[in-house]
Amino acid sequence: MVPFVDVQGMSRWIAEEGPERVLLGLVEQLEHDFRRWPAFHVVERVADHSTRGVIELMPTSDGETYGCKYVNGHPGNPALGLQTVTAFGVLADVATGYPTFLAEMTLLTALRTAATSAMAARALARPGAATMAMIGTGSQAEFQALAFRAVLGIDRLAVWDVDPEAMRKLQRNLEPLGFEVRIATSAADATARADVITTCTADKANATVLTDAMVRPGVHLNAIGGDCPGKTELDPAILPRAAIFVEYEPQTRVEGEIQQAGPEVAVTELWRVLDGSEPGRTSDDQITLFDSVGFAVEDFSALRYVREATRDTAHARALDLVAAPEDPKDLYAMLQAAPVAVG
Amino acid sequence: MVPFVDVQGMSRWIAEEGPERVLLGLVEQLEHDFRRWPAFHVVERVADHSTRGVIELMPTSDGETYGCKYVNGHPGNPALGLQTVTAFGVLADVATGYPTFLAEMTLLTALRTAATSAMAARALARPGAATMAMIGTGSQAEFQALAFRAVLGIDRLAVWDVDPEAMRKLQRNLEPLGFEVRIATSAADATARADVITTCTADKANATVLTDAMVRPGVHLNAIGGDCPGKTELDPAILPRAAIFVEYEPQTRVEGEIQQAGPEVAVTELWRVLDGSEPGRTSDDQITLFDSVGFAVEDFSALRYVREATRDTAHARALDLVAAPEDPKDLYAMLQAAPVAVG
Repeated sequence: MVPFVDVQGMSRWIAEEGPERVLLGLVEQLEHDFRRWPAFHVVERVADHSTRGVIELMPTSDGETYGCKYVNGHPGNPALGLQTVTAFGVLADVATGYPTFLAEMTLLTALRTAATSAMAARALARPGAATMAMIGTGSQAEFQALAFRAVLGIDRLAVWDVDPEAMRKLQRNLEPLGFEVRIATSAADATARADVITTCTADKANATVLTDAMVRPGVHLNAIGGDCPGKTELDPAILPRAAIFVEYEPQTRVEGEIQQAGPEVAVTELWRVLDGSEPGRTSDDQITLFDSVGFAVEDFSALRYVREATRDTAHARALDLVAAPEDPKDLYAMLQAAPVAVG
Repeated sequence: MVPFVDVQGMSRWIAEEGPERVLLGLVEQLEHDFRRWPAFHVVERVADHSTRGVIELMPTSDGETYGCKYVNGHPGNPALGLQTVTAFGVLADVATGYPTFLAEMTLLTALRTAATSAMAARALARPGAATMAMIGTGSQAEFQALAFRAVLGIDRLAVWDVDPEAMRKLQRNLEPLGFEVRIATSAADATARADVITTCTADKANATVLTDAMVRPGVHLNAIGGDCPGKTELDPAILPRAAIFVEYEPQTRVEGEIQQAGPEVAVTELWRVLDGSEPGRTSDDQITLFDSVGFAVEDFSALRYVREATRDTAHARALDLVAAPEDPKDLYAMLQAAPVAVG
C-alpha cells in the first residue's frame, strides 16, 4: 500500500499546521536540497504543448529517492470554472523502483512556488524590504503573500490585476490575517513604492505586465508567470539592467523571461547563491531578478516534506497502487486470487 | 473526482471478464491506435537509470487525450520478494490539462505487452503457427501464452528458464487452462520445433538467451526482454538474418536488440504493416523479429480501454486528486473551508 495525501488530506494538514508554518518548513527543506544541488539528476521537464495549454512531467532524483510531478497550465481554464494549474506527484525508491508516496499537488505546488520565491527573495532582496507589489492576484497570490510575510516580514501589499474581482478576493482573504492590502489603479501605481515586485499572471503570450519604467534601482523582481515558451511578463528592456538568477539554466533559457534575450545574457543558478559559491545582491542599487519557471527539485523537496509531516497521520491514507503477488514471479496468480464481486 | 482502478479493481475486472477476452479487446484497441499512429505525439521515454534498475515515464497524446505511465524495471527485485516491473498510469484531457483517469498498471502492463506481442505476431508469424517456445517464465509469461492462444490459437508451449521453480509455476498456472506445456531441458531444446519464439528475461545485461543456431528459417521472434540500453537477449548474428519490426525506431535503436547493430540495419515500424503501407512477412522461409521495447501508445490504448470498460462499475472508484475550489481563482479558500480534524 502506498501512502496517499488527497486534496482533503492536504487541505486539512495545511489548515491544521497553519499555512505560514508549512511555508517556513518548506523553505527549510528547499534550502537543504538547493544546497546539495549537484546530488540531483536534473533534466528539463517534458512538455506536451497544445493550443490550449501545456501538460508537463517534472522528474528528478537524488540517487536514493525519485520524484515526479504531473502538472498542467491552461490559462483559459478559469473561464470554464476550472483552475489554470492542477498537479499531482509521486515519490519512489530508486533502489527498487517502487512508488512510496502519492499526493495531490495543486495546493502543494502553490505552496512550494511561494516558498521558493520567498527563499530566493531572502537571498536577493534589499535588507529591510517592507512593501511588495503584486501584479496578478489569481490562485497563487495569497500563497506568495503568506510566504513573504513568514520569511521576510513583508505585510504591506499593493496589488493589480486586470480582473477587479480577483483583487477584491485577495483583499478579502488577506486583510483578516493582518495584511495591509492596497488595490492599485494600475501596474505603475502598484509598483511605485515597492521593494519587491511579484509578477504572476497566466496569459500564454509575450505580455508586458511590467514595463521598464516601473522598475526602480534596488528592487527585487520575483517573476513567476513567464514559465513556458512564448509566455513572458517583463519588458525585455529590464533584462540588461538586472542581475538574473534562475533555477536550472537550460530550462529557463527556453521557458523563462530570458527566452527574450540572447545567450549572451549571463545568469546565476540560485543554488550557487544559497551554497555560498556565488554572490547574490552586491549593492543596494542593484536590480535583482529571480526568473522563476519552477523546477523538479522544488517538487521533490515539497513531496518529501509532506510525506514526513503526514506519516502515520489521518491526512495520509493507503492506496492500493502496486500489485503485491505472494510469489513475485507469479503475477498471474493475482487473477485467480481475485474474489469476483457479485452484481 | 478522478476515476481510479486500483490493484483489486483491476484484478477483479480481469477475472470477471476473463483474461483472454480482455486481451482480445486490447488487441482491437491497439490495432485501432497503431493504424492512426501519425495522430500521436511520439517521444522517447524519459528514463532515470541507476545501478539497480530504471524508472521511466512514458507520455504520449493524440491531441485530445494525454496518457502517461510510470514504470520501473529492477531485475534484482524478485530476490527481495518484489516484482521486477510495477507501474501506474494516468489519462488527461488535453483541452483542460485535468487528469481524467488513474489506474494501477502492473497487471495492465503485463496484459498490454502480451496483447502487443500477439498483435505483431498475427501480422508477422507464418500462417498456421501452432507451437511457441518461451525463454523466460517470469511474471509476463502466462499473459503472453494467453494472448497467443486468444489471437493465434497457439496452445502448445515449450518453455525454458534458469529458475526451475518459475517453469513449474507456469505449468501449474497454464495446464488447467488447456495448454500443453513441455518443460524443456535447455533453450535449444525449447526452440527446436517452435514456430514462434518468445524471449522474456529480466537481466539488465547483454545476455544471449537465444543463439543464432536456435533460429530456423520461417520462425517469428517475439523479443521482449531487450528493452533498455545495455539489456539485450539475442545473439547479434541473428539480426542480419531477420526482417526487423519495431514500435518507434528512435527509441528501439537505443533500447532494443538493434542497439547491438549499426544504423545500417533496416527496420520497419509495426504501425506501417498494420495500416497496410509496408509489407510484413514476405515468405514462409523469412525470419521475422518483433524487437519490442514497449511504447507509450500501447499504454495509452490500454488505459483508454480500461477506462471505458470500467466506467460506472464498482471496479473504478473516485479519487480526490484534483482540488476544485468554488472560485477557480481562489485556491486559498480551500484552506479556510477545510474542516480541521480533531485529535
